[in-house]
Amino acid sequence: MLKKYEAMSTQVNLTKTLMAKSVVDRYLNRTNLICYSELSRLIGCEAFVKHENHNPTGSFKIRGALNFFHHMSREELEAGILVATRGNHGLAMAWAGQWFHVPCTVVVPEGNNPEINRTIESYGAELIIHGEDFYDAQSYCDELVDSAGYYYVQQGNEPEILNGLATMGLEIMEDLPDVDTIICPIGGGAGCASILKTARAIRPDIEIIGVEPQNAPSFYQSWKKGELVILDEAHTLADGLASRSVFHLPYVILKDAINDVILLTEDEIREGVRLALTATHNLAEFAGAVSLMAAYKIKDRLAGKKVVMVMSGGNMHMDALKTVIGS
Amino acid sequence: MLKKYEAMSTQVNLTKTLMAKSVVDRYLNRTNLICYSELSRLIGCEAFVKHENHNPTGSFKIRGALNFFHHMSREELEAGILVATRGNHGLAMAWAGQWFHVPCTVVVPEGNNPEINRTIESYGAELIIHGEDFYDAQSYCDELVDSAGYYYVQQGNEPEILNGLATMGLEIMEDLPDVDTIICPIGGGAGCASILKTARAIRPDIEIIGVEPQNAPSFYQSWKKGELVILDEAHTLADGLASRSVFHLPYVILKDAINDVILLTEDEIREGVRLALTATHNLAEFAGAVSLMAAYKIKDRLAGKKVVMVMSGGNMHMDALKTVIGS
Repeated sequence: MLKKYEAMSTQVNLTKTLMAKSVVDRYLNRTNLICYSELSRLIGCEAFVKHENHNPTGSFKIRGALNFFHHMSREELEAGILVATRGNHGLAMAWAGQWFHVPCTVVVPEGNNPEINRTIESYGAELIIHGEDFYDAQSYCDELVDSAGYYYVQQGNEPEILNGLATMGLEIMEDLPDVDTIICPIGGGAGCASILKTARAIRPDIEIIGVEPQNAPSFYQSWKKGELVILDEAHTLADGLASRSVFHLPYVILKDAINDVILLTEDEIREGVRLALTATHNLAEFAGAVSLMAAYKIKDRLAGKKVVMVMSGGNMHMDALKTVIGS
Repeated sequence: MLKKYEAMSTQVNLTKTLMAKSVVDRYLNRTNLICYSELSRLIGCEAFVKHENHNPTGSFKIRGALNFFHHMSREELEAGILVATRGNHGLAMAWAGQWFHVPCTVVVPEGNNPEINRTIESYGAELIIHGEDFYDAQSYCDELVDSAGYYYVQQGNEPEILNGLATMGLEIMEDLPDVDTIICPIGGGAGCASILKTARAIRPDIEIIGVEPQNAPSFYQSWKKGELVILDEAHTLADGLASRSVFHLPYVILKDAINDVILLTEDEIREGVRLALTATHNLAEFAGAVSLMAAYKIKDRLAGKKVVMVMSGGNMHMDALKTVIGS
């Protein structure tokens, strides 16, 4: 099974990422890579934040969505696309789908944030609420695909989505070629894997560190065990990282190449959002702030280095924010 | 006195703004103009936000600072520059000063946010704390100039600062040429005046609406009275708008050209920050959120229109945020 994905991983490469960049640049402004003095002081390194939260739809996912639609034929997408999401992937696919005039059906689990659901619908997508968590929503997509003929987009296993996401890695390397360490959250693994592929193609010695919640260590456990682990549950505040398993393609890219994975407690995840607010004046979602908090946690190892922290998204909700600010 | 500034106002024009854009584009990524469905739903218009809060240093001021330094000669800046600021202007001038290797001295009033002060110093500027408010800090600059030979940058009265700021208006017009209404905060007036100049040069019928705190209606009173008013005090949460008077140059540009000025209570200013958080997932400073709140306040007049709200800055502090979120 993994052999197929090992072969597929060669399709995620610098040449195709450069091609993806010419696509993405038609639709998106470059996101800022900002060096924050207060964050640098706190961590004791040169602390740069890559602001993927500034993208339309509020996350890095839009890069992959745009490159995906660009590469698909009209015939392949005739019946429309189907995606399972907790939020950012669905927002991105629905937004990009509008540009490419492709109908989108988006499956979200029960209890998904109604604000997110409404925004997905406002992009013209059809919304289906099904299952207890993301894993259930994904399984439901498998059923729907058999019956309705949609193209089911498994975000993490589409090479052109990874090449699209990899453009953020390319921008980091263009803006800060001598970066020492890039820290990136791992949910399904696509973002971190795509950054790793690009950065290492340019500088093989660059350090790449992933971050997961202690409550959802799906990649961490797979990496330690040497095989893809599916967790029984993955309950964390950082819903963007609440993955019971990573995708196969990112797993084969990351497993022998990533330098380390930092696990954060729920308290640390909350603290990350506060750190983002005070030191960068940005509202990050829980998943979007973990790279900052992980850097703070391992600051002794980062002393004096040039460190990029990927702020992957900003779709934070008021109720959650209140619990963070109040405490 | 105003005659001088009326003559000066002809130096703020579309040609010079296009030239400024070629300068600004060397240093800054274009900021996003994003249409938010939730904000559109709430206001009942097509609601676009121009994200000046995403700029380095966290506000639109950086555009003017970069264009200013570009146009000055080495001789003029030999003794370094001097600025009075509550925050964003000083941050921008110090940041840009580093690029151009010009020493900056920054005067802030007593009680200014220590976080802002520390960041200004981190950009290599010398910080002087003096006076009870911005107006006092400005007066102290007049004294220093006489004794020390600095170039004192009165941000609102430098045509090339306004041409730099006007690039945000140019970007709005490029991204949304058929915009009906642009809403912009008025502090010293430079931002709003520069947007008005550019937008009207391209589309003379475009509606420009300014926003001020009810507690600091320095432009509003001047506009109603037909002469430049200096308020006795200007105490408002929105410290970016706590101006006892607008600058002369913006005043002469705005006085017969602006369509309306909306005044907001302190409660409305707080509510604006909440609106920005929920409907755009962005942390705006008080001044940065007033254009959204003003649009909401006059939503009956904006029904169905294409409206751009300038989110001018994001330098919000945790203590202030807590009071907003808690209430």
